[in-house]
Amino acid sequence: MSSTRDIDALIEMMAKLPGLGPRSARRAVLHLIRKRAQLFTPLADLMHTVAASARECLNCANVGTSDICDICASEKRANGQLCVVEDVADLWAMERAGVFKGRYHVLGGTLSALDAIGPDELRIPKLVDRVTTEDITEVILALNATVDGQTTAHYIADQLEDRVTLTSLAQGVPIGGELDYLDDGTITAALNARKKL
Amino acid sequence: MSSTRDIDALIEMMAKLPGLGPRSARRAVLHLIRKRAQLFTPLADLMHTVAASARECLNCANVGTSDICDICASEKRANGQLCVVEDVADLWAMERAGVFKGRYHVLGGTLSALDAIGPDELRIPKLVDRVTTEDITEVILALNATVDGQTTAHYIADQLEDRVTLTSLAQGVPIGGELDYLDDGTITAALNARKKL
Ligand SMILES: [Zn+2]
Ligand SMILES: [Zn+2]
Repeated sequence: MSSTRDIDALIEMMAKLPGLGPRSARRAVLHLIRKRAQLFTPLADLMHTVAASARECLNCANVGTSDICDICASEKRANGQLCVVEDVADLWAMERAGVFKGRYHVLGGTLSALDAIGPDELRIPKLVDRVTTEDITEVILALNATVDGQTTAHYIADQLEDRVTLTSLAQGVPIGGELDYLDDGTITAALNARKKL
Repeated sequence: MSSTRDIDALIEMMAKLPGLGPRSARRAVLHLIRKRAQLFTPLADLMHTVAASARECLNCANVGTSDICDICASEKRANGQLCVVEDVADLWAMERAGVFKGRYHVLGGTLSALDAIGPDELRIPKLVDRVTTEDITEVILALNATVDGQTTAHYIADQLEDRVTLTSLAQGVPIGGELDYLDDGTITAALNARKKL
């Protein structure tokens, strides 16, 4: 290879990112080298900052820069509504829609017989705990409209049905669809038309 | 947004890389945060190293970590053959094929009436200079099989035809194809079957 070992190693590491492969990693690294001052150095700096400061919220598992995330820390978000999502990317999609004013709980996946993921591998015990200790009146199950997502929603509903009002996103989520692919308007419609379980 | 300002800024910057968009940048950043020790911190470190050390070779415009790249510096590559490519990515594609043992000259693009790119915007004067001062016997025009690539090849051939043997990659390069997309075997076949202009 004509490129030196560091450049090769950088390309190899970039190629491991989701959505990138060897070819796009090479293109990205060449682009960065050409835009050293405007992009490469600032990106490297910001990566160091975020790598040092990013952490999971101890309460909801959202990603932020403190032990308790901005949403959990905000008194304004304590409206009694708790929105359960599979993944941080789904939480971000909900926030981009801007329509939900309560707090979140990130499960970290779905129940899956195939992958041997049971309730204890997810953050379901913590969810039950939060419903007991926080002043929650409604749990909105905003899980993906996949088989595993819906299985997980039913399992959680069984655990919580006597304690709170349970709702799920309804209108607007396409069958087999994933939240993170939806536009803001669809998410807003789905939330506004949520139905009682 | 639930993510803090630094995380948002990192996503925005990653989304500017070729091949990535906002959604894949969000996925990549979440992936990095989850793999902090194995991937995020090492990637940030390596970015700093490469951002500080990467530079264009003063002779051939290949990317390396010194003023004269490894290929230009290697006496083993001084075999009288000079391979002219449009882009560093094309040089890397040639090197991956592993069949060419001479040196390179990266033009930095092609002549283009549409984009007002003339010979002086490319490294054509430097190419003519190298043919005069280095001991070059053959110039291989390994330009993309696009209209602009072939126009550029003909222009260079006109400049150099009395001084050296001119050849071009022939067999195997598909019409409209670009070097960086080809497999190693195709590049090898094209080089071995190169034809005299
Ligand atoms: Zn939180
Ligand atoms: Zn060089």
